[in-house]
Amino acid sequence: MAHLARSAPLRHLSRAAQLTHNSSSWSRVASNATRAYSTAGAAKSKGSSTSVKAFTALSAIAAGAAFWSQMPATKDVECEAPKKQEQKKPSKTAEADKKRKLEGLTKDSPMRLRMEAFNKKLQAEITAAIEKVDGEAKFKVDRWNRVEGGDGISMVLQDGKVFEKAGVGVSVVYGMLPPAAVAQMRAQHPNIAETKESTPFFATGISCVMHPHNPNAPTVHFNYRYFELGSEDGGEPVSWWFGGGCDLTPVILYEEDAVHFHRVIKEACDKHDPRYYTDFKKWCDEYFYIPHRGERRGVGGIFFDDLDDKSPEELFAFVQTCGNAFTSQYVPIMERRKDMPFTAEDKHWQQIRRGRYVEFNLVYDRGTKFGLLTPGARIESILMTMPLTARWEYMHEPDLKAHGRLMEVLRVPKDWVPTTHNV
Amino acid sequence: MAHLARSAPLRHLSRAAQLTHNSSSWSRVASNATRAYSTAGAAKSKGSSTSVKAFTALSAIAAGAAFWSQMPATKDVECEAPKKQEQKKPSKTAEADKKRKLEGLTKDSPMRLRMEAFNKKLQAEITAAIEKVDGEAKFKVDRWNRVEGGDGISMVLQDGKVFEKAGVGVSVVYGMLPPAAVAQMRAQHPNIAETKESTPFFATGISCVMHPHNPNAPTVHFNYRYFELGSEDGGEPVSWWFGGGCDLTPVILYEEDAVHFHRVIKEACDKHDPRYYTDFKKWCDEYFYIPHRGERRGVGGIFFDDLDDKSPEELFAFVQTCGNAFTSQYVPIMERRKDMPFTAEDKHWQQIRRGRYVEFNLVYDRGTKFGLLTPGARIESILMTMPLTARWEYMHEPDLKAHGRLMEVLRVPKDWVPTTHNV
Repeated sequence: MAHLARSAPLRHLSRAAQLTHNSSSWSRVASNATRAYSTAGAAKSKGSSTSVKAFTALSAIAAGAAFWSQMPATKDVECEAPKKQEQKKPSKTAEADKKRKLEGLTKDSPMRLRMEAFNKKLQAEITAAIEKVDGEAKFKVDRWNRVEGGDGISMVLQDGKVFEKAGVGVSVVYGMLPPAAVAQMRAQHPNIAETKESTPFFATGISCVMHPHNPNAPTVHFNYRYFELGSEDGGEPVSWWFGGGCDLTPVILYEEDAVHFHRVIKEACDKHDPRYYTDFKKWCDEYFYIPHRGERRGVGGIFFDDLDDKSPEELFAFVQTCGNAFTSQYVPIMERRKDMPFTAEDKHWQQIRRGRYVEFNLVYDRGTKFGLLTPGARIESILMTMPLTARWEYMHEPDLKAHGRLMEVLRVPKDWVPTTHNV
Repeated sequence: MAHLARSAPLRHLSRAAQLTHNSSSWSRVASNATRAYSTAGAAKSKGSSTSVKAFTALSAIAAGAAFWSQMPATKDVECEAPKKQEQKKPSKTAEADKKRKLEGLTKDSPMRLRMEAFNKKLQAEITAAIEKVDGEAKFKVDRWNRVEGGDGISMVLQDGKVFEKAGVGVSVVYGMLPPAAVAQMRAQHPNIAETKESTPFFATGISCVMHPHNPNAPTVHFNYRYFELGSEDGGEPVSWWFGGGCDLTPVILYEEDAVHFHRVIKEACDKHDPRYYTDFKKWCDEYFYIPHRGERRGVGGIFFDDLDDKSPEELFAFVQTCGNAFTSQYVPIMERRKDMPFTAEDKHWQQIRRGRYVEFNLVYDRGTKFGLLTPGARIESILMTMPLTARWEYMHEPDLKAHGRLMEVLRVPKDWVPTTHNV
């Protein structure tokens, strides 16, 4: 994916840029599932175009590498404003939140602070678990601060014993959303008032992509994010929502791995809503589609956005359950695949599949595209989702004896675990 | 590049699709140079938006892999219509042209037939020259026919002794252009009448990308194309124009190679118009810009589109001079680089640069993007421009001692040869 670093500084979210991301083939992503998960019903998408517009803007912002924009790529800036940016002021909410963090968080602290804390804790836990799986390499840590409020941590492990490249990023962004972007969000969140002014927003997200060396071991991606609009004075937001998901990309298909990955996330979903897994699994299969190949990027997982159909507390609990499920989703798979023998043919096939991953990320993933089109965005964070190596051969034909079943499930998504209710 | 196979079936050139390709960062490509090269002056682009719209549609069509769309990927179909497409009829012009070709071309034959013949002859000459440089591998030939009229030849050499991947494609397309696309072309070609009907068009192009193994040897790309509108009865077209260009992408910079490449194409340009080289060199530096890297794909060459500022004969002569210059542009460079010793570091740097090539092609190149968004397009032809292998490292820093000068000329384009006139 490349939710890892969805970099879309809000001041650049012009209508033109949004159109770029919202037309033609992309409209297919506005799934039926979208409709179910925002509180207000009246203005919900009749067709796909408005919902996609909102979706696009939100996803790109909420996953949040926006704060890197126009910040020099220096390490450990630690709250020191770069000289050229002295005109930028921290937002009132960011200032108030800084105090709150010093005083210590409680269960009554604003959601944004609790989600940020959760993301950072999860990042630490997952990178520790992945270092253990790798057994040799350590994550390199880059920290960032943002004058207007917010910060970020990029953790990347490259050329490890087990992992070719693994990245886990957390971002926290306080900023101002231009009226055009706010207008587009109203399509999914009609409680947002019409305005000609920029509106304060907050976004925090955690994103992760891991590419193992061994072709028997699958690539994995996840991203969970929280967005709120209109909390300039540090009070209640006008609107808020959660988004996220996880998906698995095998090179050599082991159906039990796909079943395990889906079963764990289904169990997580089922604790919170019996519809979630079915709906979000479908949405995931739609999102990670590569139209020009007629195949999905991988065997899916879940994907959701604009989620505000329950209370913030309930949805935060849901997102925490999902995020906390990641190591049990992925580590057992890695343990049984990482040391399996493989052939030169397997490695070659992996490189071809890596090419497809690059195609999805550069051509279709909305976060990546937004990031790349954003002047001054931190490109290294956006592209840390890319595999280390990839390959394109003219007229390559998959070995269908070896990979026919994988190609089949990429073309026609499979129900990996039985669902217990009808939707 | 990937003009190699600009696949944009015209029936899919909806306004939505065109918007996708025309907004935000792309508008920079509407260079001042654009304005100079269409006959009618009054409606010429004041700002960039209309000219870019026209440009986009044209480029994608004129370079012409459109004919592959919705054709099954079978080899040597040889004028046999696929069963599912029996409802499609050959255009009258295509039928008339078929007869003309059987009778033999003369200097009075329609331009489209002479440009097609030139493209096919050039393809044969260049592939022969490149096979000689490689010394071992031969081009694989795929031929295509199109029910509505037109055909194509894809020639690809892969994993040769000298070339990692080399592709030369020729396409010939007769088709109908929907009114929305015609309307957009009026921005550059005001002599096109307003219409609510689809309009017959013709496009033929030759495209080429070559990626050598040796990091001392540069990647090269060229594309020359001819487009005409409104010749349903085989008579004079309502409007016509030429487009094309060539550019060089070194991994290890040898300034004398860049100078040679530019000098040869400047000499070609100078035979036809003293302004062409200067204007088209600038346009090329603008087109092959990778905004998110702040660098160009390579050391440039020339790029032009919508060229109808002289008679068809004069411009056909210009394009022939350019196309015929290719082997003397590139082969001498290959001869002195292909057997040079190189280190593992050189190869590694090549793979990083290949990643940038992939980024340009998948994220910015309008022909590739159009092709990928086109349902049923022949993906293998579109992506034969991709390098065989590529690499992305987090926070990779170029070895500035070795490659500082290359990075400098990619960031600030250099005038490789002195120009003799002021523009």
